[in-house]
Amino acid sequence: MTESRLATVAVPPPHADRLSRTSEAAKLRLRVWLRLLACTKEIETEIRARLRAEFETTLPRFDVLALLEPEKTGLTMGELSTRLKVTSGNVTGLIDTMEEEGLVMRKRHRTDGRSTLIVATAKGRRLFLTMAPAHHAWIDDILGGVSNADVFALFGLLEKLRVSARLRAVK
Amino acid sequence: MTESRLATVAVPPPHADRLSRTSEAAKLRLRVWLRLLACTKEIETEIRARLRAEFETTLPRFDVLALLEPEKTGLTMGELSTRLKVTSGNVTGLIDTMEEEGLVMRKRHRTDGRSTLIVATAKGRRLFLTMAPAHHAWIDDILGGVSNADVFALFGLLEKLRVSARLRAVK
Repeated sequence: MTESRLATVAVPPPHADRLSRTSEAAKLRLRVWLRLLACTKEIETEIRARLRAEFETTLPRFDVLALLEPEKTGLTMGELSTRLKVTSGNVTGLIDTMEEEGLVMRKRHRTDGRSTLIVATAKGRRLFLTMAPAHHAWIDDILGGVSNADVFALFGLLEKLRVSARLRAVK
Repeated sequence: MTESRLATVAVPPPHADRLSRTSEAAKLRLRVWLRLLACTKEIETEIRARLRAEFETTLPRFDVLALLEPEKTGLTMGELSTRLKVTSGNVTGLIDTMEEEGLVMRKRHRTDGRSTLIVATAKGRRLFLTMAPAHHAWIDDILGGVSNADVFALFGLLEKLRVSARLRAVK
C-alpha cells in the first residue's frame, strides 16, 4: 500500500465525531506507522528479489529454514505456524513443497506418536548456511546509506515503539 | 518470526568466508532490520485483532477499501494487486468474497470493454468511513507510549532508511 494514499484516506473526515483526537501528534503517529510499514515492505520486497535472483528461492522458505536451524529435534506444524504468523493451512502447503524439494522432512515425534515434527535435511541446512551470510550482507548493504549514529538511534527508538505496542495490546 | 531467533541464526558462522563483513555496525544493521520487522508485525497483529473485534472484518478488506476510497472510477485487478503487493490470484479470491459481502462490485471499464474495474459499494464506503477514524485512533493509542519528540525523530530516521533502501534496490 502506498504511503501517500493511505495517509490521505485514513485521516478522519471533518464530520467524524472523533475529530478531537486528530491533533498534530496523532497525525504524526499515523504517518510514522505508514512509513514504518512502507520501509518494511520495501526492504522485504528487495530481499525477496535477491533470494529469487541469487538462490532461486523464496522468503517463506528462508524463514522456515531460519526457524529450523537451531532446532535439532525439529518443530511441529503448530510451532512453525505460530512463529511464522501464518495460518496452519498455508504452512502445510509450504512444507509439502519444501519436502518435495528435499529441503525439509517430516519425522514422527519421539514421545507423542500422533505428532509430526519438521526438520531440515542436510540439503536444507546447507542452503540456509549459504543464504544466511548473504542475507546478512544484503541488509548491511540496504541499510548502508544510514549512518552508524542514525542506525544506533533508530534501534533505540524502535525498542520504545515495541514496548509501547506491547503495553497497548488488547489481544 | 521472533527477533531473538533470527538474530541467532542469521549471523554467519565463524567459518563463513564473508566474516570480514561482520563488523559491529553490520550486526547492528541486522538487528535494526529484525526489530523493524518485529515492530511492524506486532502492530499489524494488533490492528488485525481490533478490526476483527470491533468490525468483524480483516486487514486485507480494510486495505482494499482504503485503496478504493479516493478512486471514484475504481481500480483494475492489476492495479489492486500491485498496490496491495499480493499476487493477482489472491486478489481475485479476496474481491470475490468482498463482492459476495456487498462491499465492492465489478464494473465494465468505460473505454476498454475487456477490462473490469472494482469499485466500493455504498455499504463498503460506509464501512470504511467508520473504520478509518477508529484505525487512526488505534495507531495513536498503540504508538502513544512514545513521546512526541521520539515520534518526530523516528519519522526522520525512517525516511533516511527508506532513501537508503531505495538507492540500493537491485530490482
